[in-house]
Amino acid sequence: MVCKKCDTEPVYLLTSGVRLCRSCFIKYFEKKVRKTIRINNLIEKGDKICVAISGGKDSLTVLNILNTLTKKKNFELFALLIDEGIKNYRDFTIKDAEKFCNENKIKLHIVSFKDELGYTLDEMIKILGMKPCTVCGVFRRYLLNKKARELKANKLATGHNMDDEAQTVIMNQFKKNIDVSARLGPMTGVKDDKRFIRRIKPLYLMSEKEVGTYAFLKQLMGKFTECTYENDSFRGDVRDMLNDFEMKHHGVKNNIITSFLEILPMLKNKYKNKSTINACISCKEPTSSDQCKACELKDKLKEKA
Amino acid sequence: MVCKKCDTEPVYLLTSGVRLCRSCFIKYFEKKVRKTIRINNLIEKGDKICVAISGGKDSLTVLNILNTLTKKKNFELFALLIDEGIKNYRDFTIKDAEKFCNENKIKLHIVSFKDELGYTLDEMIKILGMKPCTVCGVFRRYLLNKKARELKANKLATGHNMDDEAQTVIMNQFKKNIDVSARLGPMTGVKDDKRFIRRIKPLYLMSEKEVGTYAFLKQLMGKFTECTYENDSFRGDVRDMLNDFEMKHHGVKNNIITSFLEILPMLKNKYKNKSTINACISCKEPTSSDQCKACELKDKLKEKA
Repeated sequence: MVCKKCDTEPVYLLTSGVRLCRSCFIKYFEKKVRKTIRINNLIEKGDKICVAISGGKDSLTVLNILNTLTKKKNFELFALLIDEGIKNYRDFTIKDAEKFCNENKIKLHIVSFKDELGYTLDEMIKILGMKPCTVCGVFRRYLLNKKARELKANKLATGHNMDDEAQTVIMNQFKKNIDVSARLGPMTGVKDDKRFIRRIKPLYLMSEKEVGTYAFLKQLMGKFTECTYENDSFRGDVRDMLNDFEMKHHGVKNNIITSFLEILPMLKNKYKNKSTINACISCKEPTSSDQCKACELKDKLKEKA
Repeated sequence: MVCKKCDTEPVYLLTSGVRLCRSCFIKYFEKKVRKTIRINNLIEKGDKICVAISGGKDSLTVLNILNTLTKKKNFELFALLIDEGIKNYRDFTIKDAEKFCNENKIKLHIVSFKDELGYTLDEMIKILGMKPCTVCGVFRRYLLNKKARELKANKLATGHNMDDEAQTVIMNQFKKNIDVSARLGPMTGVKDDKRFIRRIKPLYLMSEKEVGTYAFLKQLMGKFTECTYENDSFRGDVRDMLNDFEMKHHGVKNNIITSFLEILPMLKNKYKNKSTINACISCKEPTSSDQCKACELKDKLKEKA
């Protein structure tokens, strides 16, 4: 068993059954990400891209690949890290992020929940008595959009991979939230909306396993760390189920994404009126209702603290 | 804990959390099936409906409920049973079917693989070396359509329940066959196509558990028997997965079907050209290619026998 391309020792088995060595896997991976960018027109000349990073494998992979493309594609980038204040996790990944950005001469902005909102996530959970993933998600999205815009970015790149997207598609389907799926895809948002920065997902077609392997082979980070809070249990169940299926029936995740991309244009068309964006009555940030979720939670924090 | 409607002893817990006694469950079940028929316009005055029965819980439930509606809705029905010749299974269910039809004065036609195709399913499997569900599915669909048309039916009612449909939706999604899902739904086929009899699924919104309970409470059949051939393994995996999810997260199957019905009109529109029906070059039965799958298998049987 040798690499299909160059007859050397393989390190990775693709779902198609092809084995690749270290060097050919890295080439395959980067080529597929570039193709995802090209086909979906994720990057245009003159873009200023804010890369949302956590210091984990997904976001450092995106940052690394986009950084190699800035000259060729004629765009700028910088990194933005949201420090939620999760002890024994974020403190470690911040170091990896700083080291990577330093070595690669990438401007890194760090914005913390504590400075911006008055409390760390650890403190918020105690005050609100809510699930950590819910609170974290709302404030992370809020700060990413606000700061990316303030720093004059016109796009926000994230490390979402194929597994993340397949899980979200299935979760929305299993929860009867099919309209929410209309807001998914490799690029979301509208071109000239100055309030809501467009999201791009360059790793859209790469599986979590492929991203992990790439980050490991390229030694993008130090030790592997995971968030100390337990994941949303429904997402956890969907993730485990998809991993089980993928083991038995190779290619299932990819099939879910391919099927989804076939119906996505129809979903976007059907639910286009549901995605009207208003300005939050409190902070002017974009929201689908009157007040944004972040301001709702900020009010609750004031009330309960 | 008592029946929500009449304070007597409950026998069934709906996914909504409502408990019902025997009599209220039967009323709930029949009302929901009638609503499915009405909303989807499954039955019209003057219809001649062929009910495809196996003698199992699903098909006897459909037959029983449709039989109570013939006068009110002014339509005719008869039953059609395909005897594949599966020993220790079909021989038992045929008895249940005959008993039910006798007692309810329903005309029953029995058509066998052996008479129509020269071999029982058991014999075909040995000759072809193929999976039983594949061979059985092709010939069952072929004979049901052919015989229903010869017997002058304009609709073919089947016992497909919500679990069956949810499994098929997920299987098509996981296998990247989303175009095949465009042919699903509570009623399929085209009104004035004389070759392809329209299918109707009155149990479309009833879960397998509900159907089983109804058939048991109404004592529609004798002992419970299952096909002795092993199920398609992919469908089996999807069925087990959905059952696991339903246990932990009530309503998942219903959510899948509701989500699916939201996108079904878009799918039908997108893939309408893919569902063109031709006449098989060998037998004139409807097919999506030149020769129908049944004639392909008949040729293989001739070749290998």
